[in-house]
Amino acid sequence: MNVQYVFELFGTFFFAISGAMAVQDKGQDWFGAGFMGFITAIGGGSLRDILLGSYPLVWIGDIHFLYAILLGVVAAFFFHKYLLRLPRMFVIFDTLGISFFTILGAEKALSLGVRPEIAAIMGMFTAVMGGVIRDTLINEMPVLFRKEIYATACLIGATCYLLLDHFTTLDRDVNLLLGAGVIILIRVLAVKFKLSLPAFK
Amino acid sequence: MNVQYVFELFGTFFFAISGAMAVQDKGQDWFGAGFMGFITAIGGGSLRDILLGSYPLVWIGDIHFLYAILLGVVAAFFFHKYLLRLPRMFVIFDTLGISFFTILGAEKALSLGVRPEIAAIMGMFTAVMGGVIRDTLINEMPVLFRKEIYATACLIGATCYLLLDHFTTLDRDVNLLLGAGVIILIRVLAVKFKLSLPAFK
Amino acid sequence: MNVQYVFELFGTFFFAISGAMAVQDKGQDWFGAGFMGFITAIGGGSLRDILLGSYPLVWIGDIHFLYAILLGVVAAFFFHKYLLRLPRMFVIFDTLGISFFTILGAEKALSLGVRPEIAAIMGMFTAVMGGVIRDTLINEMPVLFRKEIYATACLIGATCYLLLDHFTTLDRDVNLLLGAGVIILIRVLAVKFKLSLPAFK
Repeated sequence: MNVQYVFELFGTFFFAISGAMAVQDKGQDWFGAGFMGFITAIGGGSLRDILLGSYPLVWIGDIHFLYAILLGVVAAFFFHKYLLRLPRMFVIFDTLGISFFTILGAEKALSLGVRPEIAAIMGMFTAVMGGVIRDTLINEMPVLFRKEIYATACLIGATCYLLLDHFTTLDRDVNLLLGAGVIILIRVLAVKFKLSLPAFK
Repeated sequence: MNVQYVFELFGTFFFAISGAMAVQDKGQDWFGAGFMGFITAIGGGSLRDILLGSYPLVWIGDIHFLYAILLGVVAAFFFHKYLLRLPRMFVIFDTLGISFFTILGAEKALSLGVRPEIAAIMGMFTAVMGGVIRDTLINEMPVLFRKEIYATACLIGATCYLLLDHFTTLDRDVNLLLGAGVIILIRVLAVKFKLSLPAFK
Repeated sequence: MNVQYVFELFGTFFFAISGAMAVQDKGQDWFGAGFMGFITAIGGGSLRDILLGSYPLVWIGDIHFLYAILLGVVAAFFFHKYLLRLPRMFVIFDTLGISFFTILGAEKALSLGVRPEIAAIMGMFTAVMGGVIRDTLINEMPVLFRKEIYATACLIGATCYLLLDHFTTLDRDVNLLLGAGVIILIRVLAVKFKLSLPAFK
């Protein structure tokens, strides 16, 4: 039960909360909310593992992830009013979630023997594709395309991690925290100053 | 050519009919209808097998499923007026389809060595994800989120099957029929009395 | 570095252009456009390989495809005005792309040991599913259902290739060109004479 594992469980828990809350104004029932929390939490990591052919998928091999998701859905139900009044806290949770998922996803891909460019993409996919699948299912334009610098931050953070891993002799955990820190920093600056990438055309 | 196999082929056939008919008021051509019937029929089982890493996928390993789908699309074309005048019959077909797909899906997952909680989810996925993919492709809110107790019934039925399988010494076929029976019963009651789960918020 | 490989890289490049340009009037930023180009270019082949359990996926095993995609996105940015004024050239690129992807996809599936009926479907999936995923993500009805005879042309061309491969002793490359030629011919005729399949109902 190391620190990284705890981070993964917490990230899953927070993703489940955000997934369940995403449908709250759609007249969904309990099942729909739970289903959405589930898809959001497992979507990115599952897609990464399927693309890489890495079995069993994390949540299928380790039942704790399923319970973290159930807890997240229940938490979303009981604390949603509180969470809605604290949108800033919600952004913090989301930012922590995507930053750690990105680095852990990139690291896993790298450990499976792919090139660093592919590992960076897999890190980003791990963080954002759960939300993309969720938004697609409820017929909304994926948040990926609407938010201030979001998936881009993940891609940059993953790249930093991979560069540090390749070119320095820093400890793996230090690299991990630095990579995640880059993502957090970019997101905080992007939200604070409403930064966005130049429009395509 | 045992009874279970016949059930699977019939379920595939009925899912193809419902998939092809789902696009009938969208101005689709023959190809679009066939494509939709195909996706609806194979989507759930394919997703289950991909998530579990179980190859070859059922319809790729056994060509009979493809022909069952083609027959379903042709049947949808010739009998659609008849089917539309008998919506009740349509609900019966759909209910039989999801109930057997759920139990067979859960059983397959279990036989691949996953935990019962995961097997229950896989059973439900087998039954409902083909329709979810279909609805997402045509930009409709998945039926999963609109219908009276639907995927929930699958999850409950799968759980009953798994409990019976684990805690009793009943014959496998008896468990299968009891599990499917639970799903059918819940669906019939839900449709008849317009039952639905409490809204999430 | 044979001819087929060059065709695959060019097809990937053109698909990335069409994917990036698909979002140009959606107010996307650079990242969104690149993401769309990426999904469009790798979606069909990735789905085929995942369904067949063939690892590693082409673009994960060979980094050149990733660079072909990046080039395509950059090309879309610099030449989009030019491309928009030449819609006919765009149709030509797209037609060349789907025709070669179809035949190469069908051939790969066949080489993995599936039946010809399945190989034909896999060929068609390779060509059209990238676009289907792209359209689904941006909440548009997949082009597959809107365009004149499109996926149908792929299915017919793949079938021709497989029949030639099975019943004649023609050289593989000749079969490949004949199969692709059938798709191009059907598409050209369909666009020129605005042909479409009969509506389903």
